[in-house]
Amino acid sequence: MPFPKKVKIVEVGPRDGLQNEKQIVPLATKVELVDRLSKAGLSVVEAGSFVSPKWVPQMADSDKVMQQIHRLEDVSYPVLTPNMKGFEAAMAIGAKEVAIFGAASESFSQKNINCSIEESLARFEPIMEAAKENNVRVRGYVSCVVGCPYEGAIDPEKVAEVAARLYNMGCYEISLGDTVGVGTPEKVKDMITAVVQDVPVGKLAGHFHDTYGQALANIYAALELGVHVIDSSVAGLGGCPYAKGASGNVATEDVVYMLNGLGIETGVDLVKLCEAGRFISQSLGRVPASKVSLALSAQ
Amino acid sequence: MPFPKKVKIVEVGPRDGLQNEKQIVPLATKVELVDRLSKAGLSVVEAGSFVSPKWVPQMADSDKVMQQIHRLEDVSYPVLTPNMKGFEAAMAIGAKEVAIFGAASESFSQKNINCSIEESLARFEPIMEAAKENNVRVRGYVSCVVGCPYEGAIDPEKVAEVAARLYNMGCYEISLGDTVGVGTPEKVKDMITAVVQDVPVGKLAGHFHDTYGQALANIYAALELGVHVIDSSVAGLGGCPYAKGASGNVATEDVVYMLNGLGIETGVDLVKLCEAGRFISQSLGRVPASKVSLALSAQ
Repeated sequence: MPFPKKVKIVEVGPRDGLQNEKQIVPLATKVELVDRLSKAGLSVVEAGSFVSPKWVPQMADSDKVMQQIHRLEDVSYPVLTPNMKGFEAAMAIGAKEVAIFGAASESFSQKNINCSIEESLARFEPIMEAAKENNVRVRGYVSCVVGCPYEGAIDPEKVAEVAARLYNMGCYEISLGDTVGVGTPEKVKDMITAVVQDVPVGKLAGHFHDTYGQALANIYAALELGVHVIDSSVAGLGGCPYAKGASGNVATEDVVYMLNGLGIETGVDLVKLCEAGRFISQSLGRVPASKVSLALSAQ
Repeated sequence: MPFPKKVKIVEVGPRDGLQNEKQIVPLATKVELVDRLSKAGLSVVEAGSFVSPKWVPQMADSDKVMQQIHRLEDVSYPVLTPNMKGFEAAMAIGAKEVAIFGAASESFSQKNINCSIEESLARFEPIMEAAKENNVRVRGYVSCVVGCPYEGAIDPEKVAEVAARLYNMGCYEISLGDTVGVGTPEKVKDMITAVVQDVPVGKLAGHFHDTYGQALANIYAALELGVHVIDSSVAGLGGCPYAKGASGNVATEDVVYMLNGLGIETGVDLVKLCEAGRFISQSLGRVPASKVSLALSAQ
């Protein structure tokens, strides 16, 4: 399999990142972050989540974020919509893309969203129908694709099954998430190899957490199998909810640096991206969790 | 090329790591660090450097370290010997293995050791002869194998040339060092592909710095080409002398985690290794620069 010439980066910092930060980030800061990211050349910036503020207070103002950002024409700003109420709220502010999520681990599904995998998929059916009517694209997340904080190792066949269900329901892209970051390159390859039996590789995204420092090696392994969509979070926003003080999402800066080195086009301006990462990190009172950002600012 | 079943890890923390730390570490701490590392199952622990204390004050007591450590039978404790004076001092305390170093970048050689690459290799000739007489193994380092802080990109052919010179002089192993950490997997593969034209892959070691977060991806790429010796530094000791606040040596803990995940044998006990890393990090007053160590201690 030849390396992809282009990789689409899905920037998840403003949603997956900030929702796992302890601090509540002010609305204006979120808006500026999203706008800085789109201006850095990212073509997909996940901008928020329409979920109960009781569960995720960090995302309570996602509607205002969506209203106040300067939407660029070629940029997609997906928002998470776990149920019809969230979907309707997303439609009300003119979202063109939404995301839904299932887990490849039964225990994780129960603890995270309080229902079985099967029930979670059933809940998404009306969203898929409504999305079709509204001409809205739906992205599907699968979490725990290598390991689960409660169950340990996850069978690649189970990942393939959930990924196929989401794909067959109409998701245009399936993001495979190593939620706890325990994946290593060959395990990731085994998992992707199982999934591509059911879902074309061009429809897959790799979403790797860097909790054990393995994310870039896993991304490289995924590229070797032809995956050409990668999720990442500017400045490594988010941390890891399962291990305090540990890393979470892989930093977009580090991903772009590797892709640049591989001669793979991303359309992202690394300097502007680092600036966006420093902007949000400063607002959170810390340095970016991106080695590239630290190395470049030290020069 | 099938993956290696076993990988030898060359632990460089007590030398390459500590020599780049600002603090002078007490002798007893160095001795305990080396002993903890050997007891964690590392078969090679670089223990010091016989270089002028005027240039590297951190290594001024390497003779005492070598005298006080508890040398295990199956463990090698190489020391750096840049000249005959250093070599003789190493012989005086019973070193069985020494290391010499050349650069693949002319500017780096001039600025780092104040002579041309050619001159540096000529200086090693008497060491190689004396080592042969003393039945001492010599490891050769090549620095700047992908990039140079002064010259930028380095031609893989130049790396191959210097590696071959060291190998033909009698070095039993050639460690290829990405001193500034700018390598990405395909550049690393191009470089190794050039080197193996002249030096058998079994005689090569990969020495990757994590300044831009690329080290594990580069190690994975090197493994794919059959390299089965990896240099690393417990707790990521050393930092980066060319970018303040940036990462330097890849952390041994993170390398072992990846190799464990790949099903590759190392003989290293990850728990004991993490303990050794926490021991030295605590003595330096900081947390280990190892994501695995942080994730495991957060559980």
